[in-house]
Amino acid sequence: MKLLRFGQKGLEKPGVLDSKGRIRDVSSLCEDFSPAFFANGGVSHLRGGDIESMPIVKDDQRIGSCIAQPGNFIAIGLNYVQHAIETNAPIPDEPIIFNKAPSCISGPNDPVVLPPGSTKCDWEVEIAVVIGKQALCVPESEALDYVAGYCVCNDVSEREMQLEHGGQWVKGKMFPTFGPLGPWLVTPDELGDVQNLGLWLELNGERIQNSSTSDMIFNLALIVSYVSRHVLLQPGDVITTGTPPGVGLGMKPERYLKPGDVMELSVSGLGVQKQTVIAFEESLLAVSK
Amino acid sequence: MKLLRFGQKGLEKPGVLDSKGRIRDVSSLCEDFSPAFFANGGVSHLRGGDIESMPIVKDDQRIGSCIAQPGNFIAIGLNYVQHAIETNAPIPDEPIIFNKAPSCISGPNDPVVLPPGSTKCDWEVEIAVVIGKQALCVPESEALDYVAGYCVCNDVSEREMQLEHGGQWVKGKMFPTFGPLGPWLVTPDELGDVQNLGLWLELNGERIQNSSTSDMIFNLALIVSYVSRHVLLQPGDVITTGTPPGVGLGMKPERYLKPGDVMELSVSGLGVQKQTVIAFEESLLAVSK
Repeated sequence: MKLLRFGQKGLEKPGVLDSKGRIRDVSSLCEDFSPAFFANGGVSHLRGGDIESMPIVKDDQRIGSCIAQPGNFIAIGLNYVQHAIETNAPIPDEPIIFNKAPSCISGPNDPVVLPPGSTKCDWEVEIAVVIGKQALCVPESEALDYVAGYCVCNDVSEREMQLEHGGQWVKGKMFPTFGPLGPWLVTPDELGDVQNLGLWLELNGERIQNSSTSDMIFNLALIVSYVSRHVLLQPGDVITTGTPPGVGLGMKPERYLKPGDVMELSVSGLGVQKQTVIAFEESLLAVSK
Repeated sequence: MKLLRFGQKGLEKPGVLDSKGRIRDVSSLCEDFSPAFFANGGVSHLRGGDIESMPIVKDDQRIGSCIAQPGNFIAIGLNYVQHAIETNAPIPDEPIIFNKAPSCISGPNDPVVLPPGSTKCDWEVEIAVVIGKQALCVPESEALDYVAGYCVCNDVSEREMQLEHGGQWVKGKMFPTFGPLGPWLVTPDELGDVQNLGLWLELNGERIQNSSTSDMIFNLALIVSYVSRHVLLQPGDVITTGTPPGVGLGMKPERYLKPGDVMELSVSGLGVQKQTVIAFEESLLAVSK
């Protein structure tokens, strides 16, 4: 199944893509794709429903993040060899874990907002996993059984905040709109081999990231297992799993986002995201703060 | 007011300490001390209630974490000069931000569980702030207006996981039971000068941390303001603000927790925590996984 959420930010309804790729409103079958949905066997319940008889949603709707308010949003750093090399970082011996913030999550086509004064905002196309059931210290051989589905994530990163103000990376990873997720949460049965999916990102139409999940240093099963040895993973939690080469930090000269730039990005089978970059002062964040 | 949660883990009810220090069950006035409680003006609503007429709770109840399921749990590193020195770390020019995990939160007197194989588990008494309303890029002069209250936090840390496996600190900061919060969430009006509170920790009766929030490098207002420039803070979010000297990592020889050890810790006016250390294999985590 391909799950998605549609409607105004904060008021999204759950939907499922039907056999013809149309959005069906499944809000009569479940409340939302929230942690509670996954904890309570929501995916199985949906499979038992007659999706093709649900109301069709007009395709001019905003698409929200494919998961509502996860309890944790974890990320893996430097998980592709050539990305480690382009950023002058050593190739890691073990997965590098850091955190994004649940409050940075946005819809796949929502604007990406530059933090006030930002000059080094960067892109990172990634495949993210969404956890389906509680996981603690699970072996690698069973780890993918704990995954409810997969989605595209743009791990937007402000490099000055991340790297030039001391301490840990998270300073540049958590700003609102830095975590577009979706359009779809795709269940594993629809996806085939998750370690053989293309992923790419285009900036203003130019393809600058173009790789495959087969190039990962640590595969998805290892990542879920490894993370579960450090933190209790709960239904709905998101782990985004690292980006291939082609980020702005790795270019010579370095190249960063400016207002008006457009990012398009995708992972095979998981749909396409498209974000326009806007200045903080032009954003709803400036109005609502 | 002093807010607390009592009862079985996962089924806690909200309570308030009355004028004689007894727990009053306020579950008829509010559902829980959750993010939604703070977002919807719950504290003001409680102030309007007749606390002294609420049912008295027997004092043999388990006390839960003083906040239910926050959306984010952020921490500040190396915020006391002598702690930076004892751990051979440079004194930071700006606050160091890292994350704990909402799933690591436990009650103030619940056991602390050593991760499987852990030999370097350490203690850190801290004062934590709980956010009362949404905060993004707020100035330092207004930052404490966004704080709903304060509580004790033991920022339990596994040093091998934190420091010896590459990458970021969070590996040693997120394990379940690594974030005891409470017993009370104390509103600012009850607390006086938050930058002049004693804080201490005793291991098996020996006082090994003993300091004051007046020794912080970055004060609480600066921390809330600084963090809000990097992440959208939401009602219920927790920021724990760093530990004074006296951790096991700083001792010569280093000294770490073993099963049966007892930690008692407190911040003036915020109550006392008491945790017994147990092995993973002896814990409910091993049973429930």
